[in-house]
Amino acid sequence: MTKILRADVMLTPSGEIENAELEIDDQGRIAYAGPARAESTVTHDLAGHALMPGLVNGHTHSAMTLQRGVSDDEDFMAWLEAVQRVEQGLTRDDIVTGLELAMLEMIATGTVAFADMYHWDAGLLDLVKRAGMRVLAAPAMFTADSVGFAGVSPLTGAETLDATEAMAEQFAGDEQIKIAYGPHAPYTCPPELLREIAERSQRTGIPIHIHISESVAEIEQMTEQHGTTPGLLLDTLDFFNATVHAAHCVHLTQDEIELFARKGASISHNPVSNLKLGCGIAALPDMIGADVRLALGTDSVASNNSLDLFEEIKLATVLHRGVRHDATAVSATQVLEIATRGGAAALGFTDSGALQVGNLADVIALDLDVTRATPRGSLSSHLAFAATGQDVRHVFIGGRHIYADGKHLTLDAAHIQRKAREARQRLQSSPA
Amino acid sequence: MTKILRADVMLTPSGEIENAELEIDDQGRIAYAGPARAESTVTHDLAGHALMPGLVNGHTHSAMTLQRGVSDDEDFMAWLEAVQRVEQGLTRDDIVTGLELAMLEMIATGTVAFADMYHWDAGLLDLVKRAGMRVLAAPAMFTADSVGFAGVSPLTGAETLDATEAMAEQFAGDEQIKIAYGPHAPYTCPPELLREIAERSQRTGIPIHIHISESVAEIEQMTEQHGTTPGLLLDTLDFFNATVHAAHCVHLTQDEIELFARKGASISHNPVSNLKLGCGIAALPDMIGADVRLALGTDSVASNNSLDLFEEIKLATVLHRGVRHDATAVSATQVLEIATRGGAAALGFTDSGALQVGNLADVIALDLDVTRATPRGSLSSHLAFAATGQDVRHVFIGGRHIYADGKHLTLDAAHIQRKAREARQRLQSSPA
Repeated sequence: MTKILRADVMLTPSGEIENAELEIDDQGRIAYAGPARAESTVTHDLAGHALMPGLVNGHTHSAMTLQRGVSDDEDFMAWLEAVQRVEQGLTRDDIVTGLELAMLEMIATGTVAFADMYHWDAGLLDLVKRAGMRVLAAPAMFTADSVGFAGVSPLTGAETLDATEAMAEQFAGDEQIKIAYGPHAPYTCPPELLREIAERSQRTGIPIHIHISESVAEIEQMTEQHGTTPGLLLDTLDFFNATVHAAHCVHLTQDEIELFARKGASISHNPVSNLKLGCGIAALPDMIGADVRLALGTDSVASNNSLDLFEEIKLATVLHRGVRHDATAVSATQVLEIATRGGAAALGFTDSGALQVGNLADVIALDLDVTRATPRGSLSSHLAFAATGQDVRHVFIGGRHIYADGKHLTLDAAHIQRKAREARQRLQSSPA
Repeated sequence: MTKILRADVMLTPSGEIENAELEIDDQGRIAYAGPARAESTVTHDLAGHALMPGLVNGHTHSAMTLQRGVSDDEDFMAWLEAVQRVEQGLTRDDIVTGLELAMLEMIATGTVAFADMYHWDAGLLDLVKRAGMRVLAAPAMFTADSVGFAGVSPLTGAETLDATEAMAEQFAGDEQIKIAYGPHAPYTCPPELLREIAERSQRTGIPIHIHISESVAEIEQMTEQHGTTPGLLLDTLDFFNATVHAAHCVHLTQDEIELFARKGASISHNPVSNLKLGCGIAALPDMIGADVRLALGTDSVASNNSLDLFEEIKLATVLHRGVRHDATAVSATQVLEIATRGGAAALGFTDSGALQVGNLADVIALDLDVTRATPRGSLSSHLAFAATGQDVRHVFIGGRHIYADGKHLTLDAAHIQRKAREARQRLQSSPA
């Protein structure tokens, strides 16, 4: 059935529309996005709300919600050890619970799609479908002797590659589910595996999601072992001939930034995680300047500790101004674009991320009747600097109403939270 | 009447107490803070909540809520011009509205006390008393030809000094109201005025609140005019013989940091504002290392755009880790301490900021039955990395319950928000 939404103001690619209307057809696509029309029969009166495109989380490990706050004030290696200690006892049921918990939080804070590197199988992907979200799911791959997820099953190269391709075939053409190869990082996967993945990717059309240049330690290790930086090493393996979506890229050189731009590789900027783990500050203004394809991500709650993309939006907008001593270094409009249309494109959901006719109706409504929206300047100013995920009251994905007046329509929040607390208690009390 | 609060967990100077109890006597002071006692008659059952000391905002200009989002993507001077354009039309009624609006937002996000440089008079201070908050109010002073607040009345040195002292006398001994001299900054007040204020301060005991070393431009201007940096210039004026609470201090040298520590001057660290306006990143770890007295502030919403100190807590905890490439550079515990006891001490409310027997009962309760608290590590981890101001459900100041289950008990939220929207509309439509 056609839905017609009315709201005080709406963010569209052609500007901010006051007294706005959005029509969604029975295929879940946008049939109209513009000023209110006198003749319309409104099905969802959202007076006192703003409409904007749903947010896209460019990089997370959603099931790691079960490791929230496991280790917060220690250095990177101690943190990794603590996280892995909890992961030793992880069962598949725990991964289900962690994923459900993450979706609760993402939906409630306005995220409609996410790129996710972790354990993935068809059953977990069905959970995402039923919850109503979109995902670019990348089953994680490590070599046996490197750091990585220790629990559930060893994720060695060859078998995960085959499983990834089988899943991609199973979900081919699905509007909610996309699959990527998930080699963890250049320092945890050997060059020959990375080269093989890139070759397979070009043959199968399955994209690649990978961590690149996250920490100074990674740069030092790669330079010592290979005599070059991670991005340039990957280039010698013809890695970027595939479709690559990279997380972090905190320490790219200007040459590498230009390489990414030239090759059309996309980057998820994850400022909270990069700061919290002491990794550093990525050169977002230079990436924007070089026309790199960009997304915005939270990383997992183990290094954040929330999945609220409005926090990343505000931080990404202000952080680089401070670093560069230039209040015009990054604009609210640029970051909102990255967090919506940019992210959607990076994940392969090319007809999402913008409220325009023909696109999938991935739209969220935020409450404007709050002190932090009083008084309000432009909508983009409000969304970038004052709004929070807790202002989100409604979420529609592909036209489906999955969050209404602050209530989940596709997930049982109380049940999931209870399961999550029980799982955490068990994981923390089990011997390592 | 005695109040007895019970909650799941409580943050105290001696650690986190599970299944906690807080007793408040009829003077509004803490009579007990510890594990639940079997014999107690609980008056406020806060199951599913955490208790912590109320937050202290170390630096703001609260009435500037009316300028929220006036100018967000422009450089510092364009921003200042836009803010001042709105201030041209500011009436005293507008200042009342702006202050009330700020208090709505501060209370709702868990702030109990704030340091504030703006227009202040006895009527405005009475508003703060009635709302139930604590303030260190600094009537702003500029010289006529410098930048500054243009509306209402010219704030020349001499008359504001006398008015400040009269207010301090009027509110002497008040547990909610403290007064400070408010010279805006070393670059907007001439050396002779700053020297006079420091002399008066030592005589009257009234402290000083001032902006120091906010921007690179300020450092350059001071170096050119006086051949030295702002902190060292002030030292030559014997400024720090007075009790000084300084905002920003983004560009202090190590010598200046040690000067502040030696003189007992306190600093409000305001990371969001410093980033947003392109001012830079203060050396918080060095300040902590030198034992400088520290507070945490939002600055005004014109440069933030919210008054939610939980945003500053998270940012202050993660930012310096990223800058220093060191995840142990600043801990959650350190920043929570700065945002509570540190701020209270800097503002002169020395018996607030910590939940311990004898202190004023300035305490807030946060909802733990939310996905971002599920599962939860330590309370300090949750409060620093995952909690937001919107999780605050109850606020008690000096034992008085001023915010209950998300409702204001001392302020009419709907009326104030309506007044604020009307005022903004008028201010923006009036000719400059």
